[in-house]
Amino acid sequence: MNDLLAKYKEIALLGKIHSLMGWDTEVNMPPKGAASRGEQSALLTSISVDKWLDPEFKKLLNKAFSKKNLSLKEKAIVRNLKRASNIYYKIPKELLVKESKLTSKAFVTWAKSREENDFKSFAPYLEELLKISREVAEHLGYKDNPYDALLDLYEPGLTAKFCEDLFNRLTPELSHLSLELKSPKKPKLLRLPIESQKELAIFVLNQMGYDFSAGRMDVAPHPFETTLGRFDVRITNRYSDSSLEGLTGAMHEGGHALYEQGVNEKFEYTPLDHGVSLGIHESQSRFWENIIGRSSEFAKYIAPKYKLTQKDLYNLLNQVKPGMIRVDADEVTYNLHVALRFEIENDLINGKIKVQDLPEIWNSKMKKYLGITPKNNSEGLLQDVHWSHNSFGYFPTYTLGNLYSAQWRFYMQKELNIKKLVEKGDFKPILDWLRRNIHQYGSLYYPGELVKKVTGENLNPRYFLDYIKEKYQTSH
Amino acid sequence: MNDLLAKYKEIALLGKIHSLMGWDTEVNMPPKGAASRGEQSALLTSISVDKWLDPEFKKLLNKAFSKKNLSLKEKAIVRNLKRASNIYYKIPKELLVKESKLTSKAFVTWAKSREENDFKSFAPYLEELLKISREVAEHLGYKDNPYDALLDLYEPGLTAKFCEDLFNRLTPELSHLSLELKSPKKPKLLRLPIESQKELAIFVLNQMGYDFSAGRMDVAPHPFETTLGRFDVRITNRYSDSSLEGLTGAMHEGGHALYEQGVNEKFEYTPLDHGVSLGIHESQSRFWENIIGRSSEFAKYIAPKYKLTQKDLYNLLNQVKPGMIRVDADEVTYNLHVALRFEIENDLINGKIKVQDLPEIWNSKMKKYLGITPKNNSEGLLQDVHWSHNSFGYFPTYTLGNLYSAQWRFYMQKELNIKKLVEKGDFKPILDWLRRNIHQYGSLYYPGELVKKVTGENLNPRYFLDYIKEKYQTSH
Repeated sequence: MNDLLAKYKEIALLGKIHSLMGWDTEVNMPPKGAASRGEQSALLTSISVDKWLDPEFKKLLNKAFSKKNLSLKEKAIVRNLKRASNIYYKIPKELLVKESKLTSKAFVTWAKSREENDFKSFAPYLEELLKISREVAEHLGYKDNPYDALLDLYEPGLTAKFCEDLFNRLTPELSHLSLELKSPKKPKLLRLPIESQKELAIFVLNQMGYDFSAGRMDVAPHPFETTLGRFDVRITNRYSDSSLEGLTGAMHEGGHALYEQGVNEKFEYTPLDHGVSLGIHESQSRFWENIIGRSSEFAKYIAPKYKLTQKDLYNLLNQVKPGMIRVDADEVTYNLHVALRFEIENDLINGKIKVQDLPEIWNSKMKKYLGITPKNNSEGLLQDVHWSHNSFGYFPTYTLGNLYSAQWRFYMQKELNIKKLVEKGDFKPILDWLRRNIHQYGSLYYPGELVKKVTGENLNPRYFLDYIKEKYQTSH
Repeated sequence: MNDLLAKYKEIALLGKIHSLMGWDTEVNMPPKGAASRGEQSALLTSISVDKWLDPEFKKLLNKAFSKKNLSLKEKAIVRNLKRASNIYYKIPKELLVKESKLTSKAFVTWAKSREENDFKSFAPYLEELLKISREVAEHLGYKDNPYDALLDLYEPGLTAKFCEDLFNRLTPELSHLSLELKSPKKPKLLRLPIESQKELAIFVLNQMGYDFSAGRMDVAPHPFETTLGRFDVRITNRYSDSSLEGLTGAMHEGGHALYEQGVNEKFEYTPLDHGVSLGIHESQSRFWENIIGRSSEFAKYIAPKYKLTQKDLYNLLNQVKPGMIRVDADEVTYNLHVALRFEIENDLINGKIKVQDLPEIWNSKMKKYLGITPKNNSEGLLQDVHWSHNSFGYFPTYTLGNLYSAQWRFYMQKELNIKKLVEKGDFKPILDWLRRNIHQYGSLYYPGELVKKVTGENLNPRYFLDYIKEKYQTSH
C-alpha cells in the first residue's frame, strides 16, 4: 500500500500543478497566452495519464484491489482509486489530451463570446466538446443513458432517472411557491464602492474561519474555489455596483474552501484528500451562502456594515423573483435553473436537440420554468462557464447540494442554536460542527454513507422543501 | 532533427509550467502553500530531467551532435542543446531535485528573514545551497576555479579571472568618479499615490512597445521578468512613496520583456527561443532603465506626468550617491555593488569565508567600496533574492549588461538620433533597432558573436566608461 500511495502522490502533485494552471488561466493569464497554456495543459494531462497507465502502478493497484482484511481507510483508498482509475483505464489517453487542449481554448472563446453576446463563435467548440463527452460516456459505459456515465463522474451513482424524479418532485412545489409569494419591494441598495465590498467580503470570510494564510481571494469572471495544495485553497469572487453578489459569492466559495481547509491533514496527497463529491461540496457552499448568509439573523448581524437596515438587507438577499442568471437566483427559483440545464444536457448528450437550436430551446425553457425570456445569449445560455470546461453532468449536483445543506441544517439545529449564534456572528461552533461531521473525513465516505452517518437517513428532499416553506411562508 | 525538436518541445513546455509556478510563488502564493509548492516543483524538475535523460532523446541528440552540413540554425540548435544537456548529463538528478526542493523553501525563508532582519534563520539555507552549488561545480567541471563552472551557466565562457580583470579596470575609475562628483541637492519628490505611479508605469511600458495582451505587471517584493510562454511574458514591479523605483523598475523589467516579446516567433519551443544570456538580457533592461530612462531627454518627456520639472526629475533619477541597495544604485556606483557580490561569491564557493561571517564581511566591503555601512542585514546581505534561488554566478552578468548596453548605444547613435526620439517619446525606431539587431535572434548567436555581428568588435568597457564620464562630467 505504501508503494502505491507513493506513486499516487505524484499524480496528486501533478493535479495541484494543473489546478494552478487552471486558476491562472481564469484569473491572470493575458489573452494571447491561451494557445501555449493549452499545450502546457495537454502535456501535463498526458504525463498524468501516463502515471495512471504505468504498468508498475497498475500492478500495485490490482494487488490492492484484491487484498482482504483492509482497514476502513484502506478500503476507502482502494475504492477511490478504482473509481478514479476507470477514467484512465477506460478512456483512451488521446481523447483526454484532446479534451484538455480543447477546453483551454474553449474557455477563452466562451469568455469572449459571453462578453460580446456572440454564441456563433462558441457554438463550434460546444459541438466538439459534446462529441468528446459522448465518446467519453461510451468508453465509461452505462446502462440506460449515456448521460448517466457523465453524472456519475461528479456524484457516485447519480443517474438521469434519479434526477428526473427529483426535479419532478421539486419543480411543481417550487414553481407554485414562487408564484404564490409576492416579493417585497426591492429596497434601494446603498452603493458601496467595490473596494469596500472587497473588504467586507474579507471580513466575513475571516469571521467564517477561512484561513487567508493558506488561501487568497481574487477577482474572476466566474467565482470558483480551487485547491492548489492542502494549505493553498483559493477562491475567486466578483463584485457589482448593483447587487450583493460580492457577499454571497464570498460566502459560497468560502463554504467550499472551508471544506477543503478542514480535511484531515494526514490525507494530503492520498485518494482521501479533498471533498468527496460535488454534491457534498455544494452542500457546504450553499449552507454558508443561503442557510447562514440569507438568514434574517445574518442580516441583523451584517446590515450595519452595509449601512442598511436588517429588513432592507434581508429583503435584498431574499428577493424571490425569477431572473435570468442562475448564480444570482433566490433559493426558491434556483433549482428551476438547474432543472432547465439538466434537461438540455440530457437532450444534448442523447442527440435529441442540436447546438444550433440552443438559443431558442433555452429561451423556451426559461419561459416555461421561470416565465421570462433572456434578452440575449450572454444572459442566457452563455452565462455559465461549465460547458466550456466540458463539464456536462455537473449542474445537477447544485440541486443535490441545496438538498443536503437543508438536511445538515435540520440535524445541526438539534445540537446548536444556529439563529442565536449567527445573530452574534459567532460562527465557530457552526464550523466546528461541519468540521467534526463532514470536513475532516475528506473522501473517506461516499455521499450516501456520509449523510447516513451524520443524519441517520438517506438524502431526503423534505428538509429542503420544509426549510423553504418555513422561511418564505413565515417571513412574507 | 524534427524528432529531436518534438521531444525538446515537451521540455520547453515543462519549463513554461515551471515558470508559472515560480511566478505564482513570488506573486500570489499564500505563505502556508510553500511546502507543497516545493514538492510540486521538485516533481516537475524530476520529470523534466527524465526527459533529458530519456535514452531515446539522448540518442537523437548524439545523432544531431555528429551531423555534418548543418544550417546556421541547426548548428545553433545543436550547440544550445549540448550546452543545456551538460547540466543533466553531468549533474546527478537527485542533486537537481534536492536543489529545487530547497530553493522553494529558501525563498520563503529569505523573504521572511529580510522582512524581520533575521539573518540567522536564512543562514542554514545559505549553507545548504552553497554546498549544493559546490557539488554542482564539481560535477560540471572547471579548469582553475569551481566558481567558473557556475559563472558559465549564466554567460557562456565567463570566468572569475575575466571578471576580476574587468572589475579591476572598472572600480578605480568608478570610485574616483563617484568621489569627484558632487550630487546636486536631492529635490523633493512630489508624493504620487501608488495607484498613479502604477498607471504611469503602465503608460511608459505601453509607449516602449510592451504588449500587455501578451503579458502583465504585478507587484512583488523583488521585481523580475519571467516568460510563461512566447505570448505570456510577465513582469513584476514595486512602488514606493519616496522613490521613482516604480518607474525605473518598470523600464528595467520592461526591457527584459521586450527582448522576449521580440524573439522570432518561429523559435517558440525550440532551443533558439528566449534571450541568449543573462548578460545580453541585462543589456536590454539597462538600456531602457538607464540609457533611455535616466537621460535628460526622457526626463524632459516624462517630467510633466510626475508633476516635476525636467531638472528635478533628472536629478532624482541621477543622484550619484553611495547607497545600501543595489537595485536603487546610480549608474556610477552600481557596478561597485556587483564587484562586492562577485568577490563574496568567489570566496564563498572557494571556501575562503564562512556564512556566519557574512554580515561582517559584507559590511567591511561596503565600507571599502562605497564608504558606508548598512544599519542591518535587511539592507545588507539580505537585500537580494538571488542566493535564495541558488543563483551563484548570476551577479556579474549585471555588469556585463551595463557594458553591453553602452556599446549598443554607441552604435545605435550612428543610425538614430536617440536624444531627439526620446525627447518626443518616440521609442518605436529604438525598439525596431533592438528588434532588428538583437531581439529577433533569440539564442541563435552567442553573446560574443552577437556583439561582433552588431558592433563589429568584442565587448569593450570603454563605451561604458566614456558614456558615464560624458554624462556625469558634462551635466554636473
